Amino acid sequence: MSNLTNQTCEACEIGAPLVPEGDQAKLLKGLEGWEIENTTATSKLVNKYKFLSYKEASTFVNLIVDLAESEDHHPKITLEWGLVHLEWWSHKIKGLHMNDFICAAKSNKLFQSL
Amino acid sequence: MSNLTNQTCEACEIGAPLVPEGDQAKLLKGLEGWEIENTTATSKLVNKYKFLSYKEASTFVNLIVDLAESEDHHPKITLEWGLVHLEWWSHKIKGLHMNDFICAAKSNKLFQSL
Repeated sequence: MSNLTNQTCEACEIGAPLVPEGDQAKLLKGLEGWEIENTTATSKLVNKYKFLSYKEASTFVNLIVDLAESEDHHPKITLEWGLVHLEWWSHKIKGLHMNDFICAAKSNKLFQSL
Repeated sequence: MSNLTNQTCEACEIGAPLVPEGDQAKLLKGLEGWEIENTTATSKLVNKYKFLSYKEASTFVNLIVDLAESEDHHPKITLEWGLVHLEWWSHKIKGLHMNDFICAAKSNKLFQSL
C-alpha cells in the first residue's frame, strides 16, 4: 500500500488505460477492506469505514473531500450514522484506473490517521 | 415551510407516532424538491440538490451535519460530483416522524442560504 500512497493521480481522459484484471487482483491484496464491485455500467472500488459517531464519520468525509480536491479525482461518499461508504472509479473510462487504487490506498491512510 | 423551520426535533423513541399519510401529503406540498420513497423496510423523505462543484456540495454536506448534530437526528447523505442526495427518516419507528419534515424544511433553508 505504501507504494500507492506515494503516487499521485494523473489526468484521466477518455481512452486512458483500465487496470488489467490480473493487476487489479494483485493491487487489491494490499488494500485492506476494499472490494471491487462490478455492475453492467462500470467497476468500482468500494469500502465501508465504521465510526463511533456521526460527527467522527463526517470528519473522515472532510478528509476524503480534501483528498479528492488535491488529486482532482472525486469519489461517491455516503455518510450514515457510524458509517462511511466510499466508492472510487473513473467514469470517463467506465472502470478502474490506477488513480482509483492510489486514492483507495490514501483513503485507508487517512482513516488510520484519525 | 416556514412553520416547520421554526420547530425543533423532539426525542423519537420506539412507539412514537408516524405522521399519518394524509398529513404527509399536505406537508410535502410545502417542501420543494422532496419526495417520499417507500420501500418494504421504511418510508423516507428524499431530495437531490445540485451544485456547481464537488467542494460546494461538500459545504452543504457540512451544513447538514451541523443541523443533524443540533437536532440529534441524523440523515443519510450521499455526495457525488455536483450532487447531494439527502434522506431523512426515523429508523426507530421505521417511517416518517414530524422530525423528518422539520429537518427536510431546514435542509431546504440551508440550501437557499448558500
